[in-house]
Amino acid sequence: MKVRTQDVFETMHADLAHVDARVAQAATVDFPIVSSLVGEIVRAGGKRLRPLVLLLAGRGYHYHLEPLVTAAAGVELLHTASLIHDDNIDRAALRRGKATLNSKLSSGAVILVGDFLFAQSAMLAAATENTRVVAVFASTLGDICDGQLREMFDAHRLDQTREEYERRIFGKTASLFAGAAEMGAILGGAPESDIQALRDYGAHLGLAFQIMDDVLDLREDTAELGKPAGNDLRQGTVTLPTMLYAATLPAASSEADVLRAVVAGDRDDPAAIAEVVASIRSSGALVSATAVAQSYVERAKAHLLAVPDEETRDLLEQVADFALARST
Amino acid sequence: MKVRTQDVFETMHADLAHVDARVAQAATVDFPIVSSLVGEIVRAGGKRLRPLVLLLAGRGYHYHLEPLVTAAAGVELLHTASLIHDDNIDRAALRRGKATLNSKLSSGAVILVGDFLFAQSAMLAAATENTRVVAVFASTLGDICDGQLREMFDAHRLDQTREEYERRIFGKTASLFAGAAEMGAILGGAPESDIQALRDYGAHLGLAFQIMDDVLDLREDTAELGKPAGNDLRQGTVTLPTMLYAATLPAASSEADVLRAVVAGDRDDPAAIAEVVASIRSSGALVSATAVAQSYVERAKAHLLAVPDEETRDLLEQVADFALARST
Repeated sequence: MKVRTQDVFETMHADLAHVDARVAQAATVDFPIVSSLVGEIVRAGGKRLRPLVLLLAGRGYHYHLEPLVTAAAGVELLHTASLIHDDNIDRAALRRGKATLNSKLSSGAVILVGDFLFAQSAMLAAATENTRVVAVFASTLGDICDGQLREMFDAHRLDQTREEYERRIFGKTASLFAGAAEMGAILGGAPESDIQALRDYGAHLGLAFQIMDDVLDLREDTAELGKPAGNDLRQGTVTLPTMLYAATLPAASSEADVLRAVVAGDRDDPAAIAEVVASIRSSGALVSATAVAQSYVERAKAHLLAVPDEETRDLLEQVADFALARST
Repeated sequence: MKVRTQDVFETMHADLAHVDARVAQAATVDFPIVSSLVGEIVRAGGKRLRPLVLLLAGRGYHYHLEPLVTAAAGVELLHTASLIHDDNIDRAALRRGKATLNSKLSSGAVILVGDFLFAQSAMLAAATENTRVVAVFASTLGDICDGQLREMFDAHRLDQTREEYERRIFGKTASLFAGAAEMGAILGGAPESDIQALRDYGAHLGLAFQIMDDVLDLREDTAELGKPAGNDLRQGTVTLPTMLYAATLPAASSEADVLRAVVAGDRDDPAAIAEVVASIRSSGALVSATAVAQSYVERAKAHLLAVPDEETRDLLEQVADFALARST
């Protein structure tokens, strides 16, 4: 790896601060209780990877900050709205170590707050006054819903194919990274082939990001994750590490029996979850899944060859590496 | 009233059929169970008043059917998505005499189906490739959420002002009629002052429509409504007829006590609801509220003077009259 002269988060810090300010402004609601809860969620928003990808995708071309910041704030709010509905659907009590809205508002209020943030994100997309950006934004929202419906209806089968898994995580996670990169490139005025290359970069980065998310859910402890470890298993959601682990088991084994019972929801006691988590950890499946994520990061980087500006290319590579190296 | 040579629903039947086809196409989901449930909801969609307003607002100018049908389908799906979330929030079991999604899918699936239809409606708005239409669409979604948040947090007070009530029903209902008229006028290429006049027509029509909805909830029986009568009271939601009724009661009266107990949610037994409904019916409050709706219909019609085409003006007047005359 070549020596890096600048860190991507440092380099982009000031521009991301503009995004944060726009997000905070759009997330203001007229009801003090709701507004302070939404403000907390938005401020707890982590690394702002999606806005970062959007800004950087524009940076290699004509870097007009104003429309890029507007679209980036829209993408971050779309992500936030989607997390709020997701946590409500999963009845999750914790995210990033903090209580979710579920523990503080009625389910109905949580749905409305999510809808409100969807509306705000759509207004930000519309404020770019770029019909193509708006079209990407709307179809990304469609992809996210498709991925979430697939997770709900299709993710509880141990016999799902890799294609089914990837289609699902593309919708749920990678579509927004792909859309963010595409919107940034469009707003930067990139040539058509570069727009497509950056979209592909985002898609592959997003797949790697979600695979690592699925690995971390099984590899890390609750304290590290800020939410209960083995959460996917507890929901009966079969992710890549679990699929790779299942493929190593003889059908007639006690390990396979426990796994099937957990995925079917017949067992959700802490002992059963802990047993499956321990077996997955010692099976090598987490290492294999990480290797799959690594290969997606490499493919993401390969799409960056199109980007003319070397410094921007290097910053986008760092984001891809971060997806793999992150621990929460 | 002048003799009408043509009925608005007959005149617009073929164009509304195009809207229906576009709505049905956009509401198709990849999961057979969900798709058939969503299809049922969409087909049960009533009179398509919002698409009708949108089409008619364009009809007086350049009537290019394609973008108008696209936007009208977007408006109808936005309305449907919003009803699905609303029913989920209210835990309603019936709408238009049919079981809601709540009785057939998990709460999480219902939220996702609503989100999916939001996404589809946003894609239709984007497909008009008109940035102003997209901006109206997005801000309308924001207004709807604002109205629903107000209904949740602010509607359970007997001392609310008329301004608070109207702001709330503007967001919840009138904003979409206003937005539909505005989008139709924009797509028809109407002059700026006509766009504003048609938006005002839609807003006043929508206020009348919601006031009549609130009247019908108290005036009609369960069989007629297709959902339990007195539903607003049961939810503790104070609407215009209830406000007008409350204003007639001495603070220290048994009627006022029962009303306060019902609105506070301290009593929700059928006897208490029936007692308040009967008192409101015999108080004259329904007649007074209908008169308020009538005055909004007149104000809606006054905004139509701007529309150059007499036939279109007549059709839009019929829609306004229908809002008042409807019985469900």
